[in-house]
Amino acid sequence: MSSDRIRVAVIGASGYTGAELLRILLGHPRVEITAVMARRAAGQRIDEVFPHLTGRLALPVEAFDADAVAQRADVAFAALPHGESAPAVIAMRERGVTVLDLSADFRLADPDAWAHWYGSPEHPTHPAPALLAGAVYGLAERHRDRLAGAKLVAVPGCYPTTAILALAPLLARGLIASDGIIVDAKSGASGAGRTPSQSTHLPEAAEGIRAYKVAGAHRHTVEIEQELTRVAGAPVQLLFTPHLVPMSRGILSCAYAAPTDPARDDDSYRRALAEAYAGEPFIDVLPAGRLPDTAHVRGSNRVHVTAVYDKRSRRVLAMSALDNLVKGAAGQAIQCMNLALGLPETTGLELTPMFP
Amino acid sequence: MSSDRIRVAVIGASGYTGAELLRILLGHPRVEITAVMARRAAGQRIDEVFPHLTGRLALPVEAFDADAVAQRADVAFAALPHGESAPAVIAMRERGVTVLDLSADFRLADPDAWAHWYGSPEHPTHPAPALLAGAVYGLAERHRDRLAGAKLVAVPGCYPTTAILALAPLLARGLIASDGIIVDAKSGASGAGRTPSQSTHLPEAAEGIRAYKVAGAHRHTVEIEQELTRVAGAPVQLLFTPHLVPMSRGILSCAYAAPTDPARDDDSYRRALAEAYAGEPFIDVLPAGRLPDTAHVRGSNRVHVTAVYDKRSRRVLAMSALDNLVKGAAGQAIQCMNLALGLPETTGLELTPMFP
Amino acid sequence: MSSDRIRVAVIGASGYTGAELLRILLGHPRVEITAVMARRAAGQRIDEVFPHLTGRLALPVEAFDADAVAQRADVAFAALPHGESAPAVIAMRERGVTVLDLSADFRLADPDAWAHWYGSPEHPTHPAPALLAGAVYGLAERHRDRLAGAKLVAVPGCYPTTAILALAPLLARGLIASDGIIVDAKSGASGAGRTPSQSTHLPEAAEGIRAYKVAGAHRHTVEIEQELTRVAGAPVQLLFTPHLVPMSRGILSCAYAAPTDPARDDDSYRRALAEAYAGEPFIDVLPAGRLPDTAHVRGSNRVHVTAVYDKRSRRVLAMSALDNLVKGAAGQAIQCMNLALGLPETTGLELTPMFP
Amino acid sequence: MSSDRIRVAVIGASGYTGAELLRILLGHPRVEITAVMARRAAGQRIDEVFPHLTGRLALPVEAFDADAVAQRADVAFAALPHGESAPAVIAMRERGVTVLDLSADFRLADPDAWAHWYGSPEHPTHPAPALLAGAVYGLAERHRDRLAGAKLVAVPGCYPTTAILALAPLLARGLIASDGIIVDAKSGASGAGRTPSQSTHLPEAAEGIRAYKVAGAHRHTVEIEQELTRVAGAPVQLLFTPHLVPMSRGILSCAYAAPTDPARDDDSYRRALAEAYAGEPFIDVLPAGRLPDTAHVRGSNRVHVTAVYDKRSRRVLAMSALDNLVKGAAGQAIQCMNLALGLPETTGLELTPMFP
Repeated sequence: MSSDRIRVAVIGASGYTGAELLRILLGHPRVEITAVMARRAAGQRIDEVFPHLTGRLALPVEAFDADAVAQRADVAFAALPHGESAPAVIAMRERGVTVLDLSADFRLADPDAWAHWYGSPEHPTHPAPALLAGAVYGLAERHRDRLAGAKLVAVPGCYPTTAILALAPLLARGLIASDGIIVDAKSGASGAGRTPSQSTHLPEAAEGIRAYKVAGAHRHTVEIEQELTRVAGAPVQLLFTPHLVPMSRGILSCAYAAPTDPARDDDSYRRALAEAYAGEPFIDVLPAGRLPDTAHVRGSNRVHVTAVYDKRSRRVLAMSALDNLVKGAAGQAIQCMNLALGLPETTGLELTPMFP
Repeated sequence: MSSDRIRVAVIGASGYTGAELLRILLGHPRVEITAVMARRAAGQRIDEVFPHLTGRLALPVEAFDADAVAQRADVAFAALPHGESAPAVIAMRERGVTVLDLSADFRLADPDAWAHWYGSPEHPTHPAPALLAGAVYGLAERHRDRLAGAKLVAVPGCYPTTAILALAPLLARGLIASDGIIVDAKSGASGAGRTPSQSTHLPEAAEGIRAYKVAGAHRHTVEIEQELTRVAGAPVQLLFTPHLVPMSRGILSCAYAAPTDPARDDDSYRRALAEAYAGEPFIDVLPAGRLPDTAHVRGSNRVHVTAVYDKRSRRVLAMSALDNLVKGAAGQAIQCMNLALGLPETTGLELTPMFP
Repeated sequence: MSSDRIRVAVIGASGYTGAELLRILLGHPRVEITAVMARRAAGQRIDEVFPHLTGRLALPVEAFDADAVAQRADVAFAALPHGESAPAVIAMRERGVTVLDLSADFRLADPDAWAHWYGSPEHPTHPAPALLAGAVYGLAERHRDRLAGAKLVAVPGCYPTTAILALAPLLARGLIASDGIIVDAKSGASGAGRTPSQSTHLPEAAEGIRAYKVAGAHRHTVEIEQELTRVAGAPVQLLFTPHLVPMSRGILSCAYAAPTDPARDDDSYRRALAEAYAGEPFIDVLPAGRLPDTAHVRGSNRVHVTAVYDKRSRRVLAMSALDNLVKGAAGQAIQCMNLALGLPETTGLELTPMFP
Repeated sequence: MSSDRIRVAVIGASGYTGAELLRILLGHPRVEITAVMARRAAGQRIDEVFPHLTGRLALPVEAFDADAVAQRADVAFAALPHGESAPAVIAMRERGVTVLDLSADFRLADPDAWAHWYGSPEHPTHPAPALLAGAVYGLAERHRDRLAGAKLVAVPGCYPTTAILALAPLLARGLIASDGIIVDAKSGASGAGRTPSQSTHLPEAAEGIRAYKVAGAHRHTVEIEQELTRVAGAPVQLLFTPHLVPMSRGILSCAYAAPTDPARDDDSYRRALAEAYAGEPFIDVLPAGRLPDTAHVRGSNRVHVTAVYDKRSRRVLAMSALDNLVKGAAGQAIQCMNLALGLPETTGLELTPMFP
């Protein structure tokens, strides 16, 4: 990689993931943002769409145009809704652009799984099954090697990133059973996107917590299962319960699993995480006695993780906290870009959490 | 019961439970508040301690004095810290006062359990084992008959109320297994009391969620187990994970359990709750498709509850939401008082939730 | 007034003011809610529209129908948008129904003022100038006498109530100058209504404060001026700056005015308020040294008010806090109804603030 | 300035300003953090004091020691309480360390003013009047020249920065009168520091807004006046009303002033700000029609500012928003350091606001 600037386009720039990509990319020393695209906001300037960018970025927002992207950018981040993303990704890939796709369109390896979980009357089947094989699931901590030189990366979902990072090492080492896993996860409201809704209207959301899309209704269920199945080498089918919490950013995931050996030392699980993540630049396994808090990772690409054994009920708790817009979306995408292009993995991502 | 006013004392009136008792008692048509006691606040007026009571109640706060209580009150609510409550309760009971105790001092039937979970170097053993036998666990929905005429009521903890109400009917009907139950609960910050602390300091708490006292460290664990063991007729040992959520009031509890028969109809569990709670004045079993939200019960004595079956993982989710200061404390105590004195159970408690 | 139930209809029941009317009316000992109307929600049950009413009220929501109102109700509360309200009010008045109108349609005595501030291309002029003369501005603390027997009450706006109550006694007693008054007011997001919007979307609103509709752009400006002009007996033209604060309920108003005599005793202004409001059931003039906080009036019909003199800049600060949905809307409307019907003014309104 | 690393010590590192200094300094390309000092936290590691620094900084916290600072650091940031700061600053200055003082101890040029506003029984007079003369008031936008080479910088308070930046250009250009200015400011709770208190306890603070230290009681009043007096060339005495808002970070200031010429064009005031701040790296004068929002500057060193003319009341509103911990404290201090050391002013400060 030369020291030239990498020209980057952000597609779907009018949502929170788009904004967060711009925030982080503006601090990335090797990147130049050359195009900002978003259908609805086309014609405005990006600092009109996002007033917090005033004085930081003043590019015009354009409608998506694959040719324009190819002319002006080496790399594109696609932060588009599911279903809408695939055609744009196909068009950009055909023109040679390296694509980091933040939708779910290329996350599920099996086109039938996509059809089952994401298919709609208009799009009953996956729009680009041929591209699926080449897409790398962008969880660097598990697929770092495959990300080197990748041309199409499916950036993982926010909940899956949180849950997988807490559980995968325990499964990989055979410390927990692969069946009967429960993931009880709690997310801030930015995870619901920028479009206002009753459920994120401040007066209704500020003093309430609730679960939603329970019992297999949330599509991140299958994404977590796919990856944990790879790890476990056996089919994992789990129970996933997402909650909406009255805060803007952050996901806390608490996973429950049965130990394969109840006689193991209580701290074994935490130590296994520490061992697995030694040297990982963004994963902090907390010291014994400390528990993750989303307030401690906000604004950063970091993940705080730990595991605790409950002797009384003989169950392992694996807990993790991250910022859904950073390690759960934009930061992780940029981490993937760094790896794909052969840059140091942490370039532009050495963000200290903002606290308080 | 005559139509005379019931003279009531609130002990420990300077905390949130005390304030909530006063709020609700001020609207209770049969009650006259005759004494307000609190050690630290003694000498102030209650509306100085709690400015929201300005124009509503202007009694002086006194130091606790059992004789004064006995002279001026028929009924006392004790909202004192654990350990500090028992001696006050003993003194009041000796003087014939009916006591609603909101501490944990009389909740555990077994003094050894108290010693194990609540004992301290200064108070290694239960201070009044003789009174334990006569104390009624004040969950009206389960012990209504025993509450009639009760002289000492141990008002249940906030988390236990939430969890027990969601699980008991399912256990009682044999629909879920008594082992392997997990309770993942989320509470607003008022549950931590009125004393300021780092963890409830707004800048640190407003944008974070975290678990605390996990893996059997929280003392409500044993209280939930005691009551569910009674229901199940078999020892229940469960995993309880409390969380602190950035809001003032409310607890949402999500309990996970194995069905005794995976072939049962999906909606069986919710219907069993509906059947069990038919006619209950404060329990609303939600229609299928709706999930509990703490914002929908705030300020009221109501509990929203439901159960959902997750076909994929063959697990039952039993969910419930309540206001920790009302049905989880003050409201439930008043409900117990009504029953103990033979008043209609809902007197003074027909509070519509405050939304938004 | 006999002891019969007063039959009440709530029109525009699907908004926050509607919900708050229902909450308070459900606790009103003399009222029976006989009709709940709302265009958009018609066909649903009210507890589907507002899940917090589950178990409290299960009436069907109907489309507005003046005949149905007249048949089934003695009194109607109209919580409709400006412009939409007047025709409904006219129809109900023609049928003899006593109307409490919570819109701005009958607040401005001068039809030209209405045309200037509220007129639109479709409705350039006031729809019912004839009714204006008979409408009573429903600020009980100022127009109690005229409210007795009133058939049409224009319930004041939330900001005007807050500002007028703090300023009127000072103006009436000639303690402050009638020109140069500044009102800097801060409101929770429920004041913006139930319709979701970008500015009340939790992720964007939870960590920000901002002014809006400044420099005479907010229509409550003229309403405050009209009433203060009546008090002062001289035209008052003031500067009003509303702010959106990241909370659900509450308005805090800080008004700045010049003293007519800078040599007056510092505490004169507060004492004048205390004198003016002696005996008022809902107004608490705070003791010297205490300042209003919206958290201390939440959920109640109370107003906390005080005045402070700034010696250095020779300016009077008059501050007030209330709950925008109660004393700023629903509670005040019910207070007006009580007066209109000859009931004790506080009936159903003895609500203790909910704290925390 | 050579390209060597600047060795930096942070004194008073256990507060929020300390944490924010560390966050920003960790991203400063020319700085090495060599010492982290705080009395109470001494003996812990900084990532134990602030878990959000896990994986980012693991230095031990030491008790303050001027010799140690002098040995290991070129520059020290002192984020100590008022009164406690001066002795530490003196000791460090005597040893040749360049000091950025974030307390108020060197902000007031007149030792008598310090005695009046900050004096206490133990410290009735300023501890180092001799140093006062050499201290530069660190508002770069006004004193950039004097900051070059400065050895002792008094970093301005958060409220003064907000108010002065909005008002100074209007006063300097003679557009507004120097008397009768009112500053109504609203701050997030981090401004109250890290020590928990009743007023920042989440259950009491999350749903309330209130003014505090009104009518000249807040010590930032004199700081604003001192600087505006310099600008106006005439004594400015203003009314300052601070408010506590339920959010973590951010200050919004709304200043009211009389125009010197009411006939001036409405947009003159905003244009004057735009002219004054053309080329300023951190000040954004908003386009006409947009108003500042603290959510749009959070986490950055930026200030959003505008002015609006209210024709009706003939008054100018000057509004500004900033992050109290960044431009109101840590970021501004680093901006001053850059200027003092001859570095480009924006080094390490090109932070894009974090939104949402």
